[in-house]
Parts: sequence; structure tokens; C-alpha cells
Amino acid sequence: MGGQTQRRFGAIEAGGTKFVCAIGDASGRILTETRFPTTDPATTLGALVACLRRQEAEWGPLAAIGVAAFGPLDLNPASPHHGRILDTPKAGWTGTNIAAALAREFALPVAIDTDVNAAALGEHRWGACQDIEDLVYVTVGTGIGGGALVSGQRVHGLMHPEIGHLLPRRHPLDTEFRGVCPFHGDCFEGLASGPAILARSGASLETLAADHPQWEIEADYLAQLCTQLVFALSPRRIVLGGGVMNQARLLPMIRRRAQHWLGGYVQRVELKAGIDGYLVAPGLGAQSGIRGALAIALDIEVRRP
Amino acid sequence: MGGQTQRRFGAIEAGGTKFVCAIGDASGRILTETRFPTTDPATTLGALVACLRRQEAEWGPLAAIGVAAFGPLDLNPASPHHGRILDTPKAGWTGTNIAAALAREFALPVAIDTDVNAAALGEHRWGACQDIEDLVYVTVGTGIGGGALVSGQRVHGLMHPEIGHLLPRRHPLDTEFRGVCPFHGDCFEGLASGPAILARSGASLETLAADHPQWEIEADYLAQLCTQLVFALSPRRIVLGGGVMNQARLLPMIRRRAQHWLGGYVQRVELKAGIDGYLVAPGLGAQSGIRGALAIALDIEVRRP
Repeated sequence: MGGQTQRRFGAIEAGGTKFVCAIGDASGRILTETRFPTTDPATTLGALVACLRRQEAEWGPLAAIGVAAFGPLDLNPASPHHGRILDTPKAGWTGTNIAAALAREFALPVAIDTDVNAAALGEHRWGACQDIEDLVYVTVGTGIGGGALVSGQRVHGLMHPEIGHLLPRRHPLDTEFRGVCPFHGDCFEGLASGPAILARSGASLETLAADHPQWEIEADYLAQLCTQLVFALSPRRIVLGGGVMNQARLLPMIRRRAQHWLGGYVQRVELKAGIDGYLVAPGLGAQSGIRGALAIALDIEVRRP
Repeated sequence: MGGQTQRRFGAIEAGGTKFVCAIGDASGRILTETRFPTTDPATTLGALVACLRRQEAEWGPLAAIGVAAFGPLDLNPASPHHGRILDTPKAGWTGTNIAAALAREFALPVAIDTDVNAAALGEHRWGACQDIEDLVYVTVGTGIGGGALVSGQRVHGLMHPEIGHLLPRRHPLDTEFRGVCPFHGDCFEGLASGPAILARSGASLETLAADHPQWEIEADYLAQLCTQLVFALSPRRIVLGGGVMNQARLLPMIRRRAQHWLGGYVQRVELKAGIDGYLVAPGLGAQSGIRGALAIALDIEVRRP
């Protein structure tokens, strides 16, 4: 190994239910990884700092830290509150700034982005999208979110995409359910996230029979989401990850249903015969986020003189 | 004037109902402009070449030509058919390549993009979005379309955005109308374009009384479109242009209704007290497209060694 790959980088995935604290090298390899539950900010950040200190003692001093966090986040580079978590229903976390806390504690350059923008970057760098510059990473789990690269750049703008709050047309077998999103009720997150499936059918997807209408409803909503992404962002590929997508029979159902919703408008082979290569599973499995956090840390290094 | 501003550039706006053929200079000024109706491709391209030749004879030889065209377009730089119009309901135009025809005829560098991506670029360079790098330009007229810049780059990806084909929730006063889009029926273009207004109410918007429900329906759909753009693309500003938007009382109605659809989720002052500066009229009036075409021509020059 050359000198460059021996440099160490912190990679943090700050999720709503668990934190992942890892150290990686410049080749993109994760060397060590620890997980612990997300509780209140003070306890969780204390555990994070202690964990990273232990890892650093074992693997050597860090050059930079990348954070992939749940949002919404203030990502305006000109803002005095850059990195801060904005209004979130997650108790106690509004206003918390994970990146600033780590920068103070470790006196290192720290960069932060949304968990899903990081996952998009991870899939671009080392996963299912190494050949393209325009992609969307969608996660379907506790919530629904998406990160995007356009011309290789992570999309920020006013804030960052919040695609889980787009609105689907209601499925004919799902006209009564009000949805679980506290902001919008029946947006995609309100109708097709893990908690939405549980609230509607009283069970998680994997326990339901293959002919239970919940499967068809779920595939239809996620197909509508992918179709809206094609029309709004025109990605070259969409990666579908997250806990709900672990049900492998869902992805082929989404592909078929997306072709229905596209209505033949976008005349591209990628959306017809090539749909299996257009709507895809993550190339990095469950590691898209943490390796994206590592990529964010590496990109700080690249930018330094 | 210095030497640089004396260079001449062709700027073409190829619309579904009319073509605009212009010559501009490096400062962004349009020096001469001619309009003629869009008929069949052979006749129209013949008129275009003749017009540009006449303008060139008067104003001096061109350095490059920029084209802002109706779509859908093949904008894949690796495609042998780059610039070609893809499947369009516009009779005879499928497969036409305006940029290639001009490059052959004038032996000059020619670049092409969608009319709306060009308009977004024009507004960024000289119009209402000179201070930001992330924006969407929406046109509401014969059709509905949108162009976008992300980090200052025009969005292409698989093709280019086709936001007119996103789907709104149906307005409670508009449950029966089937919509006019041949592909999707009741997408935004099918429900809120000029022809949709005419098909639903038998009249164009400006002839309808201020309390006619058509006004409320139109504002609601366009507010839904803007809201979807906030969640999908997170622009720092949205510019609303096109013939339907000439009705000045529409924009304030859209702003109010967009705040309803956002549901308070994106906690940014730009979408609350600052909404008047977020959803805006074009800074270039009806010239966004033609000046965008000029900007495209200038950008070819910048890239040349």
C-alpha cells in the first residue's frame, strides 16, 4: 500500500434509529465500523466522539471526517448554521449540528450532507453508478428520501431534495388510508414508507402473502415516485435502497409499473427493454450511506491545497 | 465597443408555432430579430437559413450559433443523433436535426438545448437569477415545460426534464375534465396549458371573469407544479414564463396556493415571507428563450481553445 491509502478518514452515518461510526482509507475501504442506537443528541454525540476516539487510537490519526445525516439540514455554505438539523419531528434534534460538534472536538475538517446525497455519491464512486454522472438514490425505510447527482454534483439549491414529500395519485385499492406523514398525510413517505405499510396492513411487507394487495399498492407508489423523478430530474439511473427494498420481489414489480406510469412518453431504450438496468438495487448493499460519508471526507482532502 | 463585443452570434428559438431568428453580440444584446411561423421542417429550415444569411450579410459573419428548440431532443453528447428531435406529436418533425442542418450549411460550431433549458440559462446570465446557480424556468403556454440549472449546469441526464408530464392531484372543482395530453391525459400539460384551459372552459384565461373557477383551478395546478419542483430539485428560485403567465394576477394566486401545498415542510424564509422573490416573473420578459440561445452560442466560444 502506498502512502495515500494509509491515510485515515472518519465516516459517520447519522440515522434516525442508529448511528454508524467508521474509519476508512483513501481507496474507499471501511477498516472498522461500530453501530449504536440514536437516542437524545447529547448522549448520542457523546457516544459518537468516544467511539471515534477509540477507533482513531487503534487505526491512526484522521485526516478528515465525512458525515451523512438524516435531515432536513442547513447546507447553505454561506449560512452561520451550516450543517445544522432543521425542524424535525425527531424529539430534541432540531438545531443539533453534528458536523460542528465533531470539528470542535477533533479540530479537523468535517463535511456533511444528507444521508441520501451521501448514498448517491457512494454509489457513484464505488457502486452501481460508476459509469454515469446523473443519478438518484432513493431510500425506502422508516421514511422515504432521495439524493441526487446532476453532472456529478450533489443537488443542494435552497436546501436539498425532499422527494419523499412528493404526492402520488392514490391507488384504487388504497382510497381510505390517510397516510402517516405529519406534514402532508398521504405523500409518498406517508403512503409507502415502512411505518405506512405497517399502519395500513398491520404487518410489515415480508410477512404478507405474495397476493396481498399491499404488494401491488407499494410497487405502484414507488413506480410513481420513480416516474416523477424521470420527469423532474432526468437521471440516467435510479438506485432503490432502504429496508423495504430488501424484499427482492418488489423491484421487478416497480419496473413494470413504472413503464405504465411513464405512458410511453420518454422514448429511450433505458426505460423500455433496458429498464432492469435503469431501476436498480444498490451496488454497495447496505453500505451506500457509510461509504458515501467516506467519499465526502475524501472530497474535503481533494479540495485542500 | 471593444473587439469582443463586435463578434456576432446566431441565436435561434425554434418553437412549435413560431421560429425566432436573431443575431446578438458577446454582451448579450440582440441586434436583429425576425419571426416566422413553424410549418413543415423543409420549409421552416429553408426559411431559417435564408433569414440567417440575410442577417449575416447585414451584421457581419457569425462566430457560432445557439439553438433553443422544442423537444423532446436527443442531447446525449455521445449519440450520433445529438440534437435530433425525438418522437413528437408535431407532424413531420420527428427526427429533424436543426443544429446539424445549420452546422452543415454555415460550417460553424452550433450548440442546441431545449427552449426551456435555454430560457433558464438566459435568466441566469442576464435576467431574474443572476445571483443564484440553482433555478427552474417554467413555461406555461401551448404546452408546459421546464428547464433547470443545478450548480450552474443545465440538467440533461437521460434526456432533459419534462416537468409538464408530472401529475397533479385533481382540483375538487375539476374532477370531470379528462385533460388534453395525448400521452397522459391529465398531467400538468394536459390540465393547465393554454389548450387545456380552452378545452375545459371554452375560452382563454384573459376573457374569463376574475371569479370564474378556471382561475382558481389554474393557480392550484401551477402551485402544485412549483411545489413538486421544490421537493424534487430544490431550486433557489422558480421563474414562471409563457403566454398563460402574461395574466399578471395569476402569479400572486400561485404563490399563496404553493404555500398551502408545501404544508410548512421546508422551513425556509424564501418559501414564507420571501415567496414573492421565490416564484417570480421572467427578468427578460418574452426574451428569455432567444437570449438563452445567444448564451448557448457564447458558451461554445468560451469552450473553444
